[in-house]
This record gives sequence, structure tokens and C-alpha cells, in this order.
Amino acid sequence: MPELRKDPIVGRWVIIATERTRRPQDFHTPAEPRRGICPFCPGQEGMTPPELLAHRPGDGPGARANAPGWRLRVFPNKFPALRVEGELERSGDGIYDMISGVGAHEVIVETPDHTRRFSDLTEHDIVGVLSAWRDRIHDLARDLRLQYVMVFKNHGSAAGASLDHPHSQLIALPIIPKVVSEEIKGARKHWRLKERCVFCDIVRQELKEQERLVYDNPAFVAIEPYAPKFPFETWILPRAHRARFEHSSDEEFAHLANALKTTIHKLDVALGDPPYNFILHTTPLREKEPPYYHWHIEIMPTLNRVAGFEWGSGFYINPTPPEEAARFLREIGR
Amino acid sequence: MPELRKDPIVGRWVIIATERTRRPQDFHTPAEPRRGICPFCPGQEGMTPPELLAHRPGDGPGARANAPGWRLRVFPNKFPALRVEGELERSGDGIYDMISGVGAHEVIVETPDHTRRFSDLTEHDIVGVLSAWRDRIHDLARDLRLQYVMVFKNHGSAAGASLDHPHSQLIALPIIPKVVSEEIKGARKHWRLKERCVFCDIVRQELKEQERLVYDNPAFVAIEPYAPKFPFETWILPRAHRARFEHSSDEEFAHLANALKTTIHKLDVALGDPPYNFILHTTPLREKEPPYYHWHIEIMPTLNRVAGFEWGSGFYINPTPPEEAARFLREIGR
Repeated sequence: MPELRKDPIVGRWVIIATERTRRPQDFHTPAEPRRGICPFCPGQEGMTPPELLAHRPGDGPGARANAPGWRLRVFPNKFPALRVEGELERSGDGIYDMISGVGAHEVIVETPDHTRRFSDLTEHDIVGVLSAWRDRIHDLARDLRLQYVMVFKNHGSAAGASLDHPHSQLIALPIIPKVVSEEIKGARKHWRLKERCVFCDIVRQELKEQERLVYDNPAFVAIEPYAPKFPFETWILPRAHRARFEHSSDEEFAHLANALKTTIHKLDVALGDPPYNFILHTTPLREKEPPYYHWHIEIMPTLNRVAGFEWGSGFYINPTPPEEAARFLREIGR
Repeated sequence: MPELRKDPIVGRWVIIATERTRRPQDFHTPAEPRRGICPFCPGQEGMTPPELLAHRPGDGPGARANAPGWRLRVFPNKFPALRVEGELERSGDGIYDMISGVGAHEVIVETPDHTRRFSDLTEHDIVGVLSAWRDRIHDLARDLRLQYVMVFKNHGSAAGASLDHPHSQLIALPIIPKVVSEEIKGARKHWRLKERCVFCDIVRQELKEQERLVYDNPAFVAIEPYAPKFPFETWILPRAHRARFEHSSDEEFAHLANALKTTIHKLDVALGDPPYNFILHTTPLREKEPPYYHWHIEIMPTLNRVAGFEWGSGFYINPTPPEEAARFLREIGR
């Protein structure tokens, strides 16, 4: 069973995967894209665990699960980093703390079409993806052992995707990841000082100054953050204060689909279809609706001249000022 | 002039390099190792800025600077992330905070021999490298604008090295990097609770349990940490409580050279000469000798099947339990 282990100095939890353990020799050969039949393609449903959710438009209630005809399909990861089964046990070992790796790890196949990029999906398709994330978060929230659901997408093998077929992933955790708890702590501090949401302040200032603005529509803004860790790091935030992604309305999802598609298309054009990660940051499951935290999506292109030092050190040197990145991205598609 | 900018939510400072700005098209082509004459090789001293320090054993006091004959050479980075010149100015822009990019960025060429790896250097050579780091930290500490000196090594292009010739780097900063201030905060918390240094506790527990121990000698231990972010992440710590690297004695440096060489050799053998980063973590320049913080070196191999998600998310899934990594590394060279 995988374990969640806590760093005794800074309190960061990491997942130590015991079931897909890699030995030294596994790291000798470079990663190769997997070849052969794609388990995420229609007709190969038997290659994945049984589906948890699928969109089969036009099908009646008797439509067959785990068979072709779907527009979107969600199932547990075949090689999960965490498992739903088992007791949530906390234990200590001298100064160290551990939790059994209870949680969930799911795959959202975003389209039956193997060859599409995310930015090639229609806005209608993307609304379907967003709704699937929302529905899975609502379902997982009923499991009181879980504290946080992390939704993310790895696009391209350099960004960690092991399969080309467009998909996103979800990891439900019995802890709150450090990156989120730090944001919450910082946002709470700003609230105490100013009685304003720091993210609302960012949205206001970026809309006023315009120089880091990439795109906006009636409900969302896409910006280059003031102090980005990576070149062309781009954030998408609701214009209005919204604490939880999963409380979004259908109308908000329509605007979000538009903002996501447009922004990723701009990055595709500017950077030549780069590998990227995006990660949804939202309020932890057991918190009330906080006035100080504002959900958002962070998109990080994996640019091949940048890796290395930052990765290991946690200290970032960014060779592209966000104002320049925003200027390039704004121009695309004008 | 480069800028240090602060993330308004979590307080992380990043360097925005304005002088080696990269535009979108720079990211389209994969990074290629630089070819041609190596500016770090003996005889090419004119290609680098004038040296700040060199080891020229056997040479008299009249030995010529910036000419061959050196065993080790330190000079400012030709494309620095920060510059020594200029005023340290703090400024605000709405909710954002910025400091002018005053600091230093230096290169330590570790050997005249272009083709050696760090683990091929003699222990005597490595003591020379450690002494150079120490001497540069002492010199930079006299500049009261500076708060922290970060010493690190990128080995291999996948780990961010743009030149093959063995070298380490140093960045002196007018702020304390988040990764260090978090460690200090965590270590202080442990001290308040237990009146013990958390790193001393780690050393004690690892020496007792042995299962994550990689190597030890009379003054240092090399361990796989309990909750490593990456496979084969390895830490080297002084056995006794030591707050500052730059206060090490020559005898301690001899033992550290032995521990570093042995540990990196083990990683080279286990993982097939992997690219790696290592980073020195030590007490900030302006702090007293804290009883709760313990300097150490963190070594992180850049393993090609792991990048991606972790890089962007700040959340880590590690497919190699540290106990297994330690077992492999212990066996090597036995």
C-alpha cells in the first residue's frame, strides 16, 4: 500500500508509491512513448478499470457502460498513486509521521479522438470535461477521509504524460498539499491585514494595468502572474470572488471553457505546441466558503531550456518577464 | 537590471532576469550542448570575466592571474542572474513588492580537466572546491546588502548545466530564499517543542535504524531522507550540530570531501552517471549561530522518467521508497 510521508522539517507530504516501485536500472534508459494499442481509445474499454462516469449523449438510460459511444470517460487509474480501499491509519516512527495511502486516483479521458489536443476540443467538449471534474469532486467529497481533490493535466511526455490520448487526472488526498495550504495561509494573512481577498486584488490590478493581461471574457481573466516561477506561466481566475471550483454554474463553465481553450491555443501558437501541466487550485473539501481564497487554474509550459536548477532547489530564475510573455500572448489570434 | 519579485500570495521571491530575456521562439528548438572552445578550460581565461580567486599550488606570490597553471578558478558569471553594481532598492507596485536585482553570481571551475566528473576528482581537489566556497561566502558576507549565499552544482544538461566542464555556482541574494526560510521556520518550531535540533534528531534516528543510511564516516552521514521529493534524493549532514558550512574546519572538509565523493560515485554507478543538482543549505548570513538549524547538502538526480507533474505542482509522488534506494546505494563499492 502506498504511503503518505511527512517531511519532519517543513511539513511537506509526499506520496511514496510502493506499488509501482522503480529500481535503479529503470532509470537508465530514456523514457519512450508507449506504442501499440491506446487503452484510452474507443473499443479498448476492457483495457481500463470499469468506468466511474461517462458522457454518452443521445444514448438512452439502457446504454451499455464500458463500451464505445462515449464522448468522455472517467475510470480509476490502473496504476494508482493512492487507493480507495483500506483504513486511514496515522502512525509515527520516531520523529517521523506517516498516513496510509488512502485516496483516489482517476483518469478523465477528455475525447474519444486520440489525435486532438486540448485546444482542439470544442468549447462544448471542454464544458463536458469541467462538469466531469465537478461531478467527481462532489462524489469524492462524500468520503469523509478525504481532505482535498487535486485535478491536473499533463500534456506531452516532457510534462509527465505517459499516454498521448487527451486526458486529465484527479488525485483525492487525505491531507491538504503544501502548495495549497501555503496559498491559504498567505491569503488569510492578506485578509486579516486588508479584509480583502488577495486574488480579487490581483484580478483588479491586472485588469486596470493590462500589461500582464493575456485574455479576458465576462467571467474570467487569464494573466501572467507578477512573480512567475516559469516563463509563460499563466493563471486563469474567475473575475468575481469564487472560493470553490465545484460550485461553478453552467454559465461560468461556458466562460471558463472559452478562456481555457483560448489561452492554451495562444500558448500552443507562441511556443510551438509545448508540453505543459495545468493544475486546479481550489478550497479544501472540509473548509467553509472562505472569503479570502479564490479558486484558479495555473498553467505551466515545460520549456526545455529551463529545467534543472529550479526543479531541485525550489528557487526560481525566470528568463522571461511576464509583461513580455503577456504581450506576445495577447497578440496571438487578434 | 534584473529584478527580485515577490509572489503576493505565498511570499516566494523569484529572480526575473531582464538581461538574458528569452522570447517565445527561443523555446521552440531543443537545447543543444554548446560546441567549440570551452571558456572554462586552461588557456581560455580571456573568455571569462577576471578571476576573483584561484588556486595555483606551487606558484609564488608573483603568479600571473587569469593565465593557465590553476587547479581551481572562480570568476563572476558572464551572464549573471544578479549584479553587484547598483543600489538595493525596494519598491511597490499596487499590491506587489520588488527589490532591484543586487547580488552576485559566480562560477567555481573545479578542475582544469574538462573531462572529469565531480566523483573523479581527488578528495584533495574536492577540499579545494569546498575551501573556495567557504572563502567566497566569507568575502560576500562583508557586503551588508546580502542575506544569503546559495551554492549549487548542476551536472549534465538535463540538470541545467550549459557547459560540460566541471563547475559549481554561487548566487548571493539580498533576500532569504523561501526554501531556506521554511526550513528555518520548521526547525525553530521543533526546537520550541523539543529543545532539540530536528536535523540532529534525524541524524540520530538514521544512524540507529540504518535502513536509510547510505554512507557514514567520522564526521558526516549520507542518508535517503524519510520523505524524499525525488527518487534517490540524498542528503549529506554533519554528524555533530553545525549551523554554518563556512565555519567548518579543514579536518571537517576532509571528511566532507570523502562523503561527497563516495556518495556521488554511488549515484553515478547506481543510475548510470545521471544528471544531478546539489544544493548547499546553510544559515543565512545575518543570523546568529542558531541551535536549531544544521547545514547540509541535498543531492537530487534528474531522472528522466520522473519530470513533469511534480515540477509544476509542488506536489511530489516518488516511485522509489528511500529504504530501497539506500539499500542499493549502500551495496555499491562494498
